[in-house]
Order: sequence, then structure tokens, then C-alpha cells
Amino acid sequence: MRSLSRIAFAMILLSGFTLLTSLRLKTQKVIFFGDSITQAAVKPGGYIVRMKEALTQKGLASDYELIGAGIGGNKVYDLYLRMEDDVLAQNPDIVFIYIGVNDVWHKTLYGTGTDIDKFDKFYTAIINDFLDKHIRLILCTPAVIGERTDFTNQQDGDMNAYSQVIRNLAQKFHCGLVDLREIFHNYELANNPGNKESGILTVDKVHLNDAGNQLVAEKMLETLLNK
Amino acid sequence: MRSLSRIAFAMILLSGFTLLTSLRLKTQKVIFFGDSITQAAVKPGGYIVRMKEALTQKGLASDYELIGAGIGGNKVYDLYLRMEDDVLAQNPDIVFIYIGVNDVWHKTLYGTGTDIDKFDKFYTAIINDFLDKHIRLILCTPAVIGERTDFTNQQDGDMNAYSQVIRNLAQKFHCGLVDLREIFHNYELANNPGNKESGILTVDKVHLNDAGNQLVAEKMLETLLNK
Amino acid sequence: MRSLSRIAFAMILLSGFTLLTSLRLKTQKVIFFGDSITQAAVKPGGYIVRMKEALTQKGLASDYELIGAGIGGNKVYDLYLRMEDDVLAQNPDIVFIYIGVNDVWHKTLYGTGTDIDKFDKFYTAIINDFLDKHIRLILCTPAVIGERTDFTNQQDGDMNAYSQVIRNLAQKFHCGLVDLREIFHNYELANNPGNKESGILTVDKVHLNDAGNQLVAEKMLETLLNK
Amino acid sequence: MRSLSRIAFAMILLSGFTLLTSLRLKTQKVIFFGDSITQAAVKPGGYIVRMKEALTQKGLASDYELIGAGIGGNKVYDLYLRMEDDVLAQNPDIVFIYIGVNDVWHKTLYGTGTDIDKFDKFYTAIINDFLDKHIRLILCTPAVIGERTDFTNQQDGDMNAYSQVIRNLAQKFHCGLVDLREIFHNYELANNPGNKESGILTVDKVHLNDAGNQLVAEKMLETLLNK
Repeated sequence: MRSLSRIAFAMILLSGFTLLTSLRLKTQKVIFFGDSITQAAVKPGGYIVRMKEALTQKGLASDYELIGAGIGGNKVYDLYLRMEDDVLAQNPDIVFIYIGVNDVWHKTLYGTGTDIDKFDKFYTAIINDFLDKHIRLILCTPAVIGERTDFTNQQDGDMNAYSQVIRNLAQKFHCGLVDLREIFHNYELANNPGNKESGILTVDKVHLNDAGNQLVAEKMLETLLNK
Repeated sequence: MRSLSRIAFAMILLSGFTLLTSLRLKTQKVIFFGDSITQAAVKPGGYIVRMKEALTQKGLASDYELIGAGIGGNKVYDLYLRMEDDVLAQNPDIVFIYIGVNDVWHKTLYGTGTDIDKFDKFYTAIINDFLDKHIRLILCTPAVIGERTDFTNQQDGDMNAYSQVIRNLAQKFHCGLVDLREIFHNYELANNPGNKESGILTVDKVHLNDAGNQLVAEKMLETLLNK
Repeated sequence: MRSLSRIAFAMILLSGFTLLTSLRLKTQKVIFFGDSITQAAVKPGGYIVRMKEALTQKGLASDYELIGAGIGGNKVYDLYLRMEDDVLAQNPDIVFIYIGVNDVWHKTLYGTGTDIDKFDKFYTAIINDFLDKHIRLILCTPAVIGERTDFTNQQDGDMNAYSQVIRNLAQKFHCGLVDLREIFHNYELANNPGNKESGILTVDKVHLNDAGNQLVAEKMLETLLNK
Repeated sequence: MRSLSRIAFAMILLSGFTLLTSLRLKTQKVIFFGDSITQAAVKPGGYIVRMKEALTQKGLASDYELIGAGIGGNKVYDLYLRMEDDVLAQNPDIVFIYIGVNDVWHKTLYGTGTDIDKFDKFYTAIINDFLDKHIRLILCTPAVIGERTDFTNQQDGDMNAYSQVIRNLAQKFHCGLVDLREIFHNYELANNPGNKESGILTVDKVHLNDAGNQLVAEKMLETLLNK
């Protein structure tokens, strides 16, 4: 009985090791689901490219496959409409949702922004569908429309309010959170003494410059690896 | 054999008659799915109340059950979100969809109108879900935001464009159509020589007065009974 | 010679006294130039009525004539268009300018808000015309559109930015300043722990309740008497 | 006496001839006061350049000096603010005012369009100042934001309404009128059978292509020469 139990013990160890190995070897598919900021992130210098480079440096290149799924002008409605085709069809393990700028911005730009209650409802519907598939979700708050630090950017009120909706959703559904709104604000307080509208982390008040892409890449990677 | 065939024939006749009777006796459940215009339609003088009265006069009161499902401020997104709870759960036989005013109006009123491409997509999603349940659909174009006849009402361009989307959907999916946009325009050409903004068919450029409710009731009833 | 000089001395004293008396007796005409908030200020409980009551209590009722010149919906353009008829024609000694809410709010409400550069230019034109007539000017920043304290009110970005324009103008042209934006924010931080949208100083996010009228009256009076 | 009267008669004739000559030789200074459409009109192929070429062909090159005074993004408020420096300071004989597109468009684009009543008032103020200087005025209605012929362009309602304001002003103040709104609509009905949004007279729904510049040049020249 003893020898038998030893063999059983060895087998359990072995199967556990195999399981661990297979877990380590299984490449995690990560999709970044968002708007033009994410669309640009797969270009040289973009935040997804920078994340890949950082993973390579850490020897984790084969652990994660990073896929961009950003389309310019997208709002939460657009993500809802295309999540089946553009995300779920690819069977991702992890999804970053990075949306909200156009939901706020299009109010003044086209008159077709998103009511805050419907931002909540459609975002919730997306989360529910992803969680049904046991996908690990990491939500991002929209960073900035204008980099001034004294809350005089036209959309600051809404940007703060819609970011709060996302923080609440992350908490409610136990999702990861990359709070870019807060991260950017703290960075600006330290690095934008002239209260400039753009040029610190963005090229045009919204889209990321090199420093912006680097900051987003670092914070997303931190959250990705911090399981 | 002969007597048997006669009996069989009589039974077929009888069952056919029973079927006919049950068809005639089966009350059709009709839901009006819309915004504040439809919300007001169940009040005295409202277009749903007028339709009920007209059905009673025609001796058809027991053939149709008319149910209002209008909520003020609704856009196509809202109908999409609540169609399951507020319409499908009631198992209707027929649904009138009367939406579009707020999709256009909220562009200027709140900055949260509906992009025309998304108006099309979410309207299509609603139609698809209803047709899956074999519900008879009757679509209505939004009538007016302002009653001036010379296309100088601020939202006339969009009202014409969004109405065209609905006409195309009605044709594509073989739905019924009550083209209130055209019906109102023709009525105004005949009855609004002073080019007034309101007071002919509406109380406030949008919501129906008695004449407006009567006109909508007549045209909807015509389409309902014209199978 | 002595008696003559005494008489002369007495006459000088007398004329000086007369001068002083006439200075004290000259009633200062004060016009409050603004929008619906100022239009409501002449009603019972309004901030102008409260200022009158406070002046009476201080025995200064005859020193100041307070006149409301507020019209609902006014933006800086409207003040510019009607300043001749509604203010200058009355030869005021002192003018409070209290404008800005609609310049910001009408962006989302009607699509006809005021560009910030034109807000500056037309406000400057008004100031120049008033200073040409040697009128003492006291500028007020717009208080709030929404009372939440964490800068999540939709218009907070613009409200902060347009207030800054007014602060700069007050400094540049050496006008008085009642910085209602800051005054309200500090009051809310102390008295709105629940981060409510309205009900602390306003009835509806914009228009003043009793506490709001009282606060405005106190701060305006302080600035008026603090020459 | 006879010879004297003959000399006098000859002198009168002569002076009359001199007067006529000087009238014919006096170059008329014509300023085109407007927005980006007029700013582009001084470039090769632009409508002002085309008018100069047409005047040269007619041998009238020395009769008219054509000067562009268009600035991109201008609304009626901007014309009002810069009319002194940019137009009156140049002592023009004739001014074309061609404004209105941005007054309508900026409603949806920035939320800072022009209320129709203020469009009327500030336009009137400009006309009054120009007429005080005995300048011949020719008003132009804004042509198009979108070239579709069935009034489904988003801004058609406002474009029609604001054009009507300009027509009324032209009539009231006895100014010339180039009704580009109507001219373009008629041209589109004949030349845009596919109901296209752009490409017939514009490159982008608003700014003129070659055909558009040619049409505007012809119609403006016609009005300029038709005293």
C-alpha cells in the first residue's frame, strides 16, 4: 500500500506539473477594445506595440498575444454593436475596454454623444456578455479631452462623471481597472506647470504622444501582469 | 362510405367554421411602442383612445386590445433596451413603432441625439427581434418638430433623413408603414397657410393637439385594418 | 480784518458742510445687469430685495437705489445689444454685471452658446462703454450649473474657464469682482457632503433658492460698500 | 454776348465730359466680406479670381478693384467685430456680405452657432454701419451644407430659415441680393440626379469646387454690373 501510495503521489505531482506547464505555455489572447486611441496603438510607438516590447524584454513574449480592436469615432454603442464580430469571435482570454472619450466629445462635436444613463446600461450589457464567456475584463477610464490641470477643459465635468460610472462598474463586476483619468491628472499636476491644453501626454488634447503611449503601456501592463 | 364521407365533410365544415370563429374571436393584442407622443395617447383625446372609440363604432371593439407603451424622451436606444420587458413579455400580435423625434431633437437639446447610422442599426435590431416572434410590425415616421411648411423648421433636414431610413426599413422588412411625416406635411400644406410653427396639429411643435391625435388615429386605424 | 476773516472762515466751514451733506445725500444708482437669476432677484426673497433690506437695517436705504435689469436667457451678446437702452439710458453710478451661465449652458441646450474668445471680446466691449461713462463696475463670475463638488457637473470645465475670463477682465480693467464661482464652490464643500446636484444653493442646479439669494446678497453688498 | 454764351456752353459741356470721364475712370473698390468660402476665393480658381478674369475679358478690369476679406470660421459676430478694421478702414464703394454657414453649422459642430434673432440683429447692425458710409451693399444667402436636393441635409431647416432672414434684410434696406441658396438649389435639381451630398458644386458639402466657384462668380458679377 505504501508503494502504491508513493506511485499515486508521484502521479499526482506529475499531472500537477503538466498542468502547470500547460498553463504556463498557453498563450493568453488579449484584445484591446476601443476607439481611435486604441486604433493608433498598434502603430510604431503605440501603447500596444510598447507593451509587446516590454513583454519581450521580460521574457514573456510568448505568454501574451496582444490584439488591437480600436476603431476611430467609436462610442459605447459601437462597441456593443461590434463586440460579437470583433471580439467574442476571436475567443479572447482577456479584454481591455477603453472607451468614453467620444461618448462625451460627440455631444459638442456632432450632437450625438451618449446619455450618461445609457452609457452605464450599454457598458453593463457589454460586461455581462463578456463575463458570460469567462473573459477577464480590465476597464479603463477615458484619460483627457484637454490637458489643463485646473478643470477648465470644456469636457472636464463629463469626463469626471463618465469615469465615475466606469469605476463603479469595475467595482460592481469585480473587473480590473486602469484609471487613466486619475493617472493622467496626477501626471499633469507634476508635469504641466504651464497648464497647457496639449503637448504633455497628447498631440491634440486627446490622442497620445510618445509620453502618453508610454504611460498607458506601463499602467496597462502593470494591471495585466498583476493577476 | 357515402354517409361516412358526408359526416367527414360536415366535420371538416364544422371545424373550419370553428377555426374561422376562433380566428374572428381571437382578440389581437396591439402595442404602441414609442415616446412621449405615445405616452400621451392613452389619455382622453389621445390617439389610442380615439382608435378604441372608432373600433367600438365599427363593432370591432373585441377584436383588438390596444396597449400604450410610450415613455417620454425615448430614443431608439431606449426602445432597444426595454423591448423585452415592455413589449415582448406581453406577447403582442401587432406592434406599432413610433420613434424618431427625440433621436433628432436631442442633438440640439442635450447633445445626445442618435447618429443616423446607429438609428438604422438599432431600429433594425428591434425589427429583427420582433419578426423572430412573428409579430406584425407597423412602422411610423416621426411627424414634425415645427409645423412650418417651407422646410424652415430647424430639424427639417434630419426629420426628412431619419424618416427616409424608416421608409427603407419598412420596405426591406415588408412591414406596414404609417408615413406620418408625409401625412402631416400634406395636411399642413392644405391647412397651414400662415406657415405657423405650431397650433395646427401640435400644441408645441411636437406634441399632438386634438386635430393631430385625430389624424394619427385615423391613419393608424386604416393601416391596422388594411391587412 | 479779523471779523472779516472770521466770517470767511465760517463761510468756508459752511460750504464744506454743505458739500459733505450733498455728497452724503446723493443717492447712488446701482443697476444689476444680467440674466434670469437677476430677473428673479427683484421678487420677494430675491438677492436685490435682500440687499435693500440689509441697507435699510444699516440705515443706508437712502444712499443706494437698487435696480434690476435681468432678462431670462441672456448671454453676453444680449447685454451688448441692450446696454444702451436698459442701462446707460438710466445714468447709473454703479453697475453689477452678472452673466455667463447661458453663454455656457446654451451650448448644449440650443447649440447657440458663446465661443470663449467672443465672450471675452463682447464683455470687453461692454466694459469699455461703461468705463467711458465713468461708471463703477463690479463683475460677477457665474456661480453654478449643478452643485456637485467633485467637478462632475457637465458644464464645470466651461464654467471654470469662463469665470477665469471674467477674473482676468476685472483685474485688467480694475473693476470690482464678486467671484461667485469660488464663493459657491467653497460653500458647497462645507455644506454639500452628499455631493447633490441641487437643493443647497439652487432650486434646479442654476436658479437660487433662499440660501443662494442670501449668499449672493451678502457678498454683493460687501463689495458694494467696500469702496 | 453770343460768343460769351458759346464759350460758357462749351465750358459746361467740357466740365460735364470731364465729370463723366472721371466717373468712368474712378475705380470702384469692392470688398468681399465673409468666411472660409471667401477666404479661398482669392486663390487660383476662386470666385473672386474668376470675377477679375471675367472683368478683364469685358474690358472692365480698371473699373473695379476686387478685395477678399474672408476669414475661416467667421460668423456674423466676427464680421461685426472686425468690420471697422477690415472693411470700413479701406473705404470701399461696394461690399458683398456672404455669411451664415458657420452661424448654422457651429450649432452642431461646437455648440456655438448663432440664435436666429441675434443673426438678424447683428446683421442689421452691420448693414446700418455700412449704409451710414453710403456703401453699396450686396447680400448673399448661404448656399449649402450638403448638396442633397430633397431637403434631407441635416442643416437644411436652418439654412432655409437664415436665408429668409437675409432676403428680408435685403428687401428692407434696399440692398442687392445674390440668393445663392436658391441658385444652388435650382442648379442641384438640374445637375444632381443622384441626390449626392457633395461633388456637384462643393468638395466637402460646403466649400466650392470649380463649378461652384464659377457659378458664384457669374451670379455675383451679374449683380455687381446690374446697377
